[in-house]
Order: sequence, then structure tokens, then C-alpha cells
Amino acid sequence: MTLNDPRGFLGDLFKAALSAVTAEGCVPANLPSPPKGRTVVVGAGKAAAAMAQSVERHWNGPLEGLVVTRDDHGVPCARIEVIEASHPVPDERGQAAAGRILDLAQGLGEDDLLLCLISGGGSSLLAVPAPGLSLDDKRVVNRALLRSGASIDEMNTVRKHLSAVKGGRLAAAAYPARVVTLAISDVPGDDPSVIASGPTVPDPTSSADAVAILERYGIEVPPAVTLHLADPTSETPPADHPAFARAEYQLIATPMMALSAAADAARRAGVEPIILGDAIEGEAREAGTVHAGIALSVRQHGQPLSAPAVILSGGETTVTVKGDGRGGRNAEFLLGLTLALKGAAAVTALACDTDGIDGSEDNAGAICDPNTLQRAAEAGLDGQAMQANNDAYGFFTALNDLIVTGPTRTNVNDFRAILIEAPTT
Amino acid sequence: MTLNDPRGFLGDLFKAALSAVTAEGCVPANLPSPPKGRTVVVGAGKAAAAMAQSVERHWNGPLEGLVVTRDDHGVPCARIEVIEASHPVPDERGQAAAGRILDLAQGLGEDDLLLCLISGGGSSLLAVPAPGLSLDDKRVVNRALLRSGASIDEMNTVRKHLSAVKGGRLAAAAYPARVVTLAISDVPGDDPSVIASGPTVPDPTSSADAVAILERYGIEVPPAVTLHLADPTSETPPADHPAFARAEYQLIATPMMALSAAADAARRAGVEPIILGDAIEGEAREAGTVHAGIALSVRQHGQPLSAPAVILSGGETTVTVKGDGRGGRNAEFLLGLTLALKGAAAVTALACDTDGIDGSEDNAGAICDPNTLQRAAEAGLDGQAMQANNDAYGFFTALNDLIVTGPTRTNVNDFRAILIEAPTT
Repeated sequence: MTLNDPRGFLGDLFKAALSAVTAEGCVPANLPSPPKGRTVVVGAGKAAAAMAQSVERHWNGPLEGLVVTRDDHGVPCARIEVIEASHPVPDERGQAAAGRILDLAQGLGEDDLLLCLISGGGSSLLAVPAPGLSLDDKRVVNRALLRSGASIDEMNTVRKHLSAVKGGRLAAAAYPARVVTLAISDVPGDDPSVIASGPTVPDPTSSADAVAILERYGIEVPPAVTLHLADPTSETPPADHPAFARAEYQLIATPMMALSAAADAARRAGVEPIILGDAIEGEAREAGTVHAGIALSVRQHGQPLSAPAVILSGGETTVTVKGDGRGGRNAEFLLGLTLALKGAAAVTALACDTDGIDGSEDNAGAICDPNTLQRAAEAGLDGQAMQANNDAYGFFTALNDLIVTGPTRTNVNDFRAILIEAPTT
Repeated sequence: MTLNDPRGFLGDLFKAALSAVTAEGCVPANLPSPPKGRTVVVGAGKAAAAMAQSVERHWNGPLEGLVVTRDDHGVPCARIEVIEASHPVPDERGQAAAGRILDLAQGLGEDDLLLCLISGGGSSLLAVPAPGLSLDDKRVVNRALLRSGASIDEMNTVRKHLSAVKGGRLAAAAYPARVVTLAISDVPGDDPSVIASGPTVPDPTSSADAVAILERYGIEVPPAVTLHLADPTSETPPADHPAFARAEYQLIATPMMALSAAADAARRAGVEPIILGDAIEGEAREAGTVHAGIALSVRQHGQPLSAPAVILSGGETTVTVKGDGRGGRNAEFLLGLTLALKGAAAVTALACDTDGIDGSEDNAGAICDPNTLQRAAEAGLDGQAMQANNDAYGFFTALNDLIVTGPTRTNVNDFRAILIEAPTT
């Protein structure tokens, strides 16, 4: 890791961040003691298979179970069944897996342990409808929510109340077994009731909240959904449900842990880090512009800190699609940043999704440097026009500046690092 | 200044920032020594009259001159004539004043001093067309530029090449007199060639650049403009023009000076400041969302610094108008921030334009606190809907949370301060 190679330096920071939040790095130290009875492992999310594999490697004693992960996110396990399913739109494979997970939980007794492996994406993958609802009912509502402008919190409130497994229902199903949840967070605030819609923790929202959200956004729902939400017996388990007294929750990896690991790596290389935050949101290209402004201030004024410095941030920006180009939010962020920097000397930046997949593309993100705009001009690329067409992927792939990792099988949201080198004069 | 009163604390920081960049605070210490010959004071910008008044108060010796400022920005002067003119759309009063300023400069000899007082807004106020062009020619081009999506740099490049006074032409007119410019910067990077379009400094752009910009944005211009830009004798004075060897330039107030003064005031009150930058740009509401993310990280993680802390930033965001509500970029920024904070405890924020006028409204900006959304709900205000309608002014005025200062007669761009109090638990 050397500043003779700014791109390599940023790539190394990204690797350091990932290493801190992979399953094999986080699961072993957080495993509970084995129970008297059976140990059943269940799980859902982009990291579920990798976490299950790590449990298998480090667990003392008998083990069985089933986890569901996103397509292409499976890894071989010997004792825990791994099922792949569709994400972000749920499918029958996810539904079947979630049903079997509920069955496994319901079969446990007081001496047994349910080890629950939760990570981002788990909400879509654990798509088993509440009794009386069909997967199509959930899908109709889900599609309408995605188009409505509702926040992710609001969408998840509705989803929880149409589910047989979310909002603490998995813990309730496992009662009286002990439930230990190991979780990898991809949500702002690391709230356990939000990560994968909290299958093992009390739900702070109510059916009435879900109804209010559907009304707020004028979402029409199938009659079965209306009836379900009006039925008081379909409410999520209350916080004083005895199952929650038997449930423990361990956050084993978070966005801030990844950022902190990158900050440590930077410091070791003699570059002062600043972590702006782990939940920086907003329209991706505009967030890129704001980050560029901070980088330029480091260069011109030594504020908020002196170069050599690296600005780190995490979180999940959004992309309002207006064109027909390609690119996830990290590429959009980075193109916004690149254009705002206007070729400023000494600033190199990387933006990647820690799950290895930026939006629905095959890249994790992209990288830019002081020559990016010059090279783009030489290649006949119009960055402004490509930004207007939401074609950040096209821009960076033409420059051979995509970062491709494949699925990392973890997920702590986005990772951005902007290196400002010290003035050479 | 006490944390028992977060709103008062932020108001005091804003006052500290303003105090550091007012004419009377910055002009006296930067006055040059009087010349053997005449001293003629000229100037343009929102601070021009206040700067002229300060010169009069502190100058030893005879003095005469003329400055042009924005309507309602005049202050009484005894020896320097103060003319008010239209801003941001130039008018005949500005044109006449600029013509007289040129005449004053042209009348000077080697022993004389031209003291030039420059501040933001000077570009529109010094609107004297180059020979052969009419003010209408300039207006047509200006309106087309404002609609085109061209950056402010690009717009100013074109404007400079249609002007009789910008791009170093005022200095050239004053040759062989000594020229001393005192400038208050409102531009990113504090580039003298950009502040008020640099009437006394060499112009790094060319007529060919101006033509390229007009072509890039498909702007049709009057024939006289085309002829003017094609005429090599109409180029701005070259950097080796002898006038520039007789010209000195003093930045007496900058956005960073205002932010630094606020940072000092915060530190004295026991609140750790962080200056993100003096040129933070981007769509106002999205920049607000990003700032909110940083504030929440301070609260949750003590990153980038621990509470009690105040996040400071400056610069000029933009507003893409889609609705028919009211509000400048600071109100838009603050509403974006307010909505993103979702009523987070312990976070209070202020956003104001240092010139005292947010956009074209009568307020400098606004303030929000942890109860803002609650109070808005009680008042029947839908913040999301009002944001969609660009009605941030309406939102904050209904809550009695506008900040009204009237014209401050200085201008170092926007000022934002976000206080995060220490946890009370």
C-alpha cells in the first residue's frame, strides 16, 4: 500500500473494509456455546451461505439447518442446506425456503438452540406470506410500494405485517427454544428490527402503521390484504412475548466496522482518514458533488483535515432514473464526483457496493483519478450527457475503470473512499 | 452563547461568521498607502457601498470615486458616489455606472491610485457592453445562458468576452495608474479572475472559449455578438499587459474566513467544530440529506467527531425548480436536512445566505430543531409535499422559523451550521 499508486491504495482500503465484515472474519468469535439439545441453523440474506459455512467450520457439536441466499451467493456446506432464491423480487424458491425455516423453528424445544444468520437481502428472501395471503398478494403490494415514493422504512413496515416470519414471528415460532441471532447490518442505524425486517426481534410498528402508509401513498391492495391488516389476531408478536426473553442478538458486522477497518489501514499507510458517516444518503450524483466539495476543501484549505487524507463514507444513496443507460448508485455517485472535481489534481476516488454488485450490474463500483475527464474527452465520451442518461456504467466501462469483484457474500452497504494526496510543491 | 439555547448558539455562530467578513471588519487593515497623486475609488458588488463607506472612514487624504451596488444595498457616503442598480439582471443604471467607472479609470496617470472594491454580484452590476454591442445583446445571451444548463464558470467566460470592463479591462483602462483591488470572495476557490468576473486581473479564457461554450449549449446569439467574438482585437488584455504589473489584489474576506470565525466561536463555547468545506455544492435538498447523514453519524458513532460538535459548511447549492412554491437554496437545503433527520434528537441546524437574501426572498435562511417535524405535523404541514412543490419558505415561515436579517452588505456565499449536542444519558 503506497501513495505511488493511489488506485492501488484505494483498492487496498476497499479490501481492508471487506475483510472486516466477511462471514469468516466475524462469525467464529461470536458463536454461542452449544446447547444441551439440538442446534438448528437458519438464515437469510446475501451473507447467509457464507455465514453458514463459517458456522460449520467452527462449531463444536451436531448441527443441522437451512439458509436461503441470493442467486450466485451460495457456497458449499456439508450439514446446513443452502437454497438460492430470487432477490430483490421474491420468488417461490424463497417462499418455500422460508416456510421450511418456520417449520424447523416450530419443531424446537426448550433445550434447543436456533442459530439465526441474518444479513441484508434477507427481507426479500424470507418471503413467506402470512396465513390467508398469497405470494402474489405480497408481490402486488411490493411493486406498488416500490413505485410509490415510500421510504425503505415504510416499505418494510408494510412488508412485516404481510409476513409469516418477519417482525419477530420467527422468534415466536421457535419458542421455547433459545434463539441467537448473528447479524450483518446493511441499514442506517443498525436497527435489529430493520435488518432483514427483524424476524427475531420485537416489531415497533403495528398493522395500523402499515394501513396508514398504504393510505398515505394511495396504494390499492387486494381484498385479502385489507382483511389481514384489519384482523387484530394477525398483529406481530408484542414486545413482552416470552420468546423475546429467550432471544439474543449480536451485530457481528456493520457499515461502521468496515469504514473503521479502512481508516485503520489508511492510518498505517500514513494517510489521515476521516469517516463522514456510515449512513450517508441522498441522490447519488448529488452526494458525489458534495463529497467532491469536501475533497477540494482538503486540497485548498486543509479542512476538514490536511492532505494526505482519505475521506470515507458509507450508506445507501438513491438513483432517480431518467435515462436508459446502465449503472448502479456507486457508479452514479462516482460520475457525479468526477464531474464536480473537474480534473482536480491529486484526488482519486473509489465507490463500490460492499456486496460486490452495484445495482443490478456486474460491477461492484468504479474508480476515478485526476486524468479521468481528460481520458474521457480523448475517448469521445461526454460525461455530462452520459450522466443525464444515467449511463455511469457506460462511462466507466469505456475507460476500463469499473471495479469487478463478483458477489462478496457479505453486505454492509456502500463504501466510498476519496484520497487527497499531499501537495507536491 | 450557551448550549441551553441551541438556536441562540447557532444564531451567534452566524453573527460571528458575518462579523469576520463585513466591510468595516476587513477593509481598514487592508488599505494601501496613499499615492502621490489622486486616489479614485471604484467598485461593484453587494458590499461595494459598505466597503466605500469603510474606506472613507479610514482613508488619510483626498478621495473621490463611484461604486455601484445592488438595490437596497447602498449606505451613505460623503465623498464616494453610491449608485444602486438591478441585480441579478443588469439594467441601464448599472450600465451607466460601469461606463462612468471606466471613464474614471481612463483619466488616471502614473502617480494616481485606482482603489477597486470588488464583491459578489459585481459581475451583473458592472454590465457595460463591449464597443459595438448593446445591453440588449448582452441580455439576450445572458437569458439564454441561464436557461442552458451552462455552469457559472461557463456563463462568466461568455460574459467576460462581451464586456468593456471585465476580464482585466478595468485594469488596462487605468494604466499607467497603480491599481489596488480589495475583494470579498463569493466563489469556489476564491479565484480573482472569477470574483465579479475579474475586472482587474488577467483573464485565463479566450474569445474562442466563449464561442465554444455558446456552441456547446446551442445558444443562438445576435449577429453583433458573433462578429465581436470573431474579432481578434476584441480579446481580453493578455497576461503580459503592463497594466497587470501595476495591479495588486487583496482578498480581504472569503467564505473560509467566515467559517473559521464561526469555528473559533464554537470552540470558545466548548463545542468542537468541523469545517467540511467552503464550496460545498450540489442540489440543495440532496446536500441537506448528506449533511443530515453526517450529523447522525456524529450522534450515533462519534464520527467524524464527537458531540457536542458543530458541522460547518459553505458554498452555493442549486435548486432545480419543479413546483410553484417559494424559497431560496438555504431554505431548500434546510428542509431536505429536516426531512432526512426525521426528528432526530439533539440536532439543531441553521442555513443562511451571508448576503442576507436567500434566493429572491426576504429571509436570509431558516433554522430547524428536533421538534420541527412534530410542530409541522401539528400545524398540518406536509413537509414532503411542500418540498416537492419547492415551498421551503412556506414551510419555515409557517413555523416562524425563518431567519431575517435584511441585506448584510457583504457576500461570502452560504453558511450552514449543524449543532449536535452531547448525549444527555
